[in-house]
Amino acid sequence: MTGPDPAVARVRTAVRDDLADLAPEDLVLVACSGGADSLALAAATAFVAPRLGLRAGAVVVDHGLAPTSAAVTDSTAGQCRALGLDPVLTIRVTVAAGGLEGRAREARHAAFDDAVACTGAVAVLLAHTSDDQAETVLLRLARGSGARSLAGIAPRRGVLRRPLLAVRRETLRQACRAQDLTWWEDPGNAVDGPATTRDGDALPRSAVRHRVLPALAAAVGADPVTALTRTAELLRRDADLLDELAAEVGARAAASGALRVEVLATAHAALLPRVLRAWLIAAGAPAGDVGSQHLESVAALVTGWRGQIGVDVPGGLRVVRRDGVLAVAPLTRSPRSR
Amino acid sequence: MTGPDPAVARVRTAVRDDLADLAPEDLVLVACSGGADSLALAAATAFVAPRLGLRAGAVVVDHGLAPTSAAVTDSTAGQCRALGLDPVLTIRVTVAAGGLEGRAREARHAAFDDAVACTGAVAVLLAHTSDDQAETVLLRLARGSGARSLAGIAPRRGVLRRPLLAVRRETLRQACRAQDLTWWEDPGNAVDGPATTRDGDALPRSAVRHRVLPALAAAVGADPVTALTRTAELLRRDADLLDELAAEVGARAAASGALRVEVLATAHAALLPRVLRAWLIAAGAPAGDVGSQHLESVAALVTGWRGQIGVDVPGGLRVVRRDGVLAVAPLTRSPRSR
Repeated sequence: MTGPDPAVARVRTAVRDDLADLAPEDLVLVACSGGADSLALAAATAFVAPRLGLRAGAVVVDHGLAPTSAAVTDSTAGQCRALGLDPVLTIRVTVAAGGLEGRAREARHAAFDDAVACTGAVAVLLAHTSDDQAETVLLRLARGSGARSLAGIAPRRGVLRRPLLAVRRETLRQACRAQDLTWWEDPGNAVDGPATTRDGDALPRSAVRHRVLPALAAAVGADPVTALTRTAELLRRDADLLDELAAEVGARAAASGALRVEVLATAHAALLPRVLRAWLIAAGAPAGDVGSQHLESVAALVTGWRGQIGVDVPGGLRVVRRDGVLAVAPLTRSPRSR
Repeated sequence: MTGPDPAVARVRTAVRDDLADLAPEDLVLVACSGGADSLALAAATAFVAPRLGLRAGAVVVDHGLAPTSAAVTDSTAGQCRALGLDPVLTIRVTVAAGGLEGRAREARHAAFDDAVACTGAVAVLLAHTSDDQAETVLLRLARGSGARSLAGIAPRRGVLRRPLLAVRRETLRQACRAQDLTWWEDPGNAVDGPATTRDGDALPRSAVRHRVLPALAAAVGADPVTALTRTAELLRRDADLLDELAAEVGARAAASGALRVEVLATAHAALLPRVLRAWLIAAGAPAGDVGSQHLESVAALVTGWRGQIGVDVPGGLRVVRRDGVLAVAPLTRSPRSR
């Protein structure tokens, strides 16, 4: 008796391990684009879920970004049904213009929320691979990032789960081939969105995949993907602990929405920016806009105060130091400038 | 009255800030290769040191790796003397074969130690730039590394100081041009050693500089060097705190050279590998050889013990769990296998 192809077995094991904590009759949805990665995930989930007493369905999102996207969506939904997944939802979204990778992801995640709401699913499975993780780490590194950001794509976040973050993209293609699954090839091989903008400009992820990672592999004489994935795991642990410690400092410093300077002044240099970041976001600063330069400037109100008036931060906020605390409030125009 | 060229001013400021903690009459030595980076550092130090009441000399290391190296060494020593540096030491080293970048660095650092011993210098200044730092971070990332390793080149280590880690390579070239200093151009522009092996193979650092960083810059549409340097700084702070916390756990767990499992079992996942790493190195495991896989295996003796016999680690050591502790001892052959 021969077992399944090793690639098929590898994907099934990854999915089985990831779903082990769910309860009988729980429903999981596979987010399937029709590409090799998510098709292999769909096949593995269709096989594994019933054996764990779980129900498995799929959600197929049509971004409407290419003339063929409706046909790809229909074909993919058909493949999911043929695999035995049920229910299979198709959802058409509208992607706002500008920053296409990010907008497409936002629209897709909103569709997942809808799918969860109407099916009662406990998890949505995404097919991000260790190659995707490596690309993410390099992209964030090139933009200047701390440990949390370099920790890359989270294995879990809310209902989203990514069982394949330690599996290589090539393994998923092999799993599809071994199961006679025909996948849709995105023109730019972009897993997390289209490879070019509507104007044909190359997108960063595609450039990292096709040019930076091969150059790095040639430079060190070894495939860097496994190393980058490992780095992301290590930095995720670090970031988890450092965020916990920062939350403790933040709780000790808290005073009616402000932060007491005497507590902040004793915080380790690794924790102070994390305390300030969490506090600013709680006050309404957009998480994606608060950069390390803003945090350095606010930290200087603690560690290098020479009577600065205040520091403007994203979200139209200003941080001021007065009466021994840092306070944050909406930036108001002075009467003179009205 | 016009001040110096902005590039010259930038380099002088960086050196001045770095030497501010030294005492009058202290001697600092500039490690000068004759390349643009270290020549600019030599000129800035010759200018700044007397104004701080310090003495400044130079050490020029001849690696003997190229037919022209003796001539380059003589010419560089002459330039250092012309800048007013005194004493100027030239030291010829022999580089052992194999792993050329690493061996050349070892030989160079041994020469610095000799120079310090015979002159009584309190610091040796190295000309590593933020470009070097970015290359180092990428190289280590491609090899799979935690925060300490990704923190890159340390600003200070023992007597070694690197005042220019936040200064760009191009700034140093401009500083040389502005001061009419003619630098020696390493055939491969390699700052930290030769660019090719004796067989002409490209070395990783050179490939990262000339191929990976440009590809990354093109991918994200911005120069990644500043971002990579910033990342290294942030991860250095994190690694400092995490190492402190791990040392506390290690001290609580310590029991006559062994580590108590009941203490290790309560350690955060980010700290346990750090505790184990420090312990193994103290027991004689070579720091460069202890990888994250070894640490995972040893950690499994704590977090996933199923009666494993033991774990072999670099340095000919074996870690065993018995009587509630982890113990490490040289791996001895069993009588049967003698």
